[in-house]
Amino acid sequence: MIKAVFSALLVLVAVTSTFGKYIPKTGKRIPQTLSRGWGDQLIWAQTYEEALYWSRSRNKPLMVLFHLEDCPHSQALKKVFSENNEIQKTLDEKFIVLNLMYETTDKHLSPDGQYVPRIIFVDPTMTVRADITGRYANRMYAYEPGDIKLLSSNMAKALKLLKSEL
Amino acid sequence: MIKAVFSALLVLVAVTSTFGKYIPKTGKRIPQTLSRGWGDQLIWAQTYEEALYWSRSRNKPLMVLFHLEDCPHSQALKKVFSENNEIQKTLDEKFIVLNLMYETTDKHLSPDGQYVPRIIFVDPTMTVRADITGRYANRMYAYEPGDIKLLSSNMAKALKLLKSEL
Repeated sequence: MIKAVFSALLVLVAVTSTFGKYIPKTGKRIPQTLSRGWGDQLIWAQTYEEALYWSRSRNKPLMVLFHLEDCPHSQALKKVFSENNEIQKTLDEKFIVLNLMYETTDKHLSPDGQYVPRIIFVDPTMTVRADITGRYANRMYAYEPGDIKLLSSNMAKALKLLKSEL
Repeated sequence: MIKAVFSALLVLVAVTSTFGKYIPKTGKRIPQTLSRGWGDQLIWAQTYEEALYWSRSRNKPLMVLFHLEDCPHSQALKKVFSENNEIQKTLDEKFIVLNLMYETTDKHLSPDGQYVPRIIFVDPTMTVRADITGRYANRMYAYEPGDIKLLSSNMAKALKLLKSEL
């Protein structure tokens, strides 16, 4: 008897929690996250404007990460990136982070082209750190999964902030 | 015995699934969603550039919604907005949607100021529909929870696309 009441309650809870909520014809979707899998525990800026504002006001460098969901190179880097505790911790504590699937109107963010994956650092003075590059001469801001240590040392470079004019 | 093995397995699964994952000092966070509570089942654009691209390529009007998490007017509107099935269904099927907490550099999106909540429609021809307004003369693009029917009829207006030049 108690079991039956409990079951009925469970059903009731299930019904009321979905009652009236819009569900697409194609079925319920998992809400998209701002992280897009690059670090669910990080606080991601939504737009470049927002990221610049945070970077300036908190005096932290910004990492902008361009990627695409259907790009296998992006996905391979994402796996290593999101599972690397040291990188995740440093980004969370010392950086502003932004991941984008569409280019911005700011050409400084694509010094040598609009490819993915591409990682650009920006100083809190709003200067794009074009000097912080990966290991590929034809795609200077690209990183492969094997380059994660280089990325880590580039993050350390970005943390040495340019001299503020203030 | 079987129960014990099963329990051990469960523990193992729980341990391995969290093993090695970065957790902030302040505790585990719930990943932020792009919807920010304005409709978890909708597919939200992340940036204005992205939203404009989708709007043009799919020939659907764009709704841009400016809001703030710590603004009670935004929160009150969000509750009514996210729980309104008709609005959610129409947005999902016939609109491109974008919600922003930071202003863009495009001044056309703030015809009479940068207040929140503020809802601006953009035609697929990339024309801001400054003619689609709410009921407040001093904040023409603001909506209160009681204005949800007006918002609905404004959505219908936005669906009557401006004549394309093509």
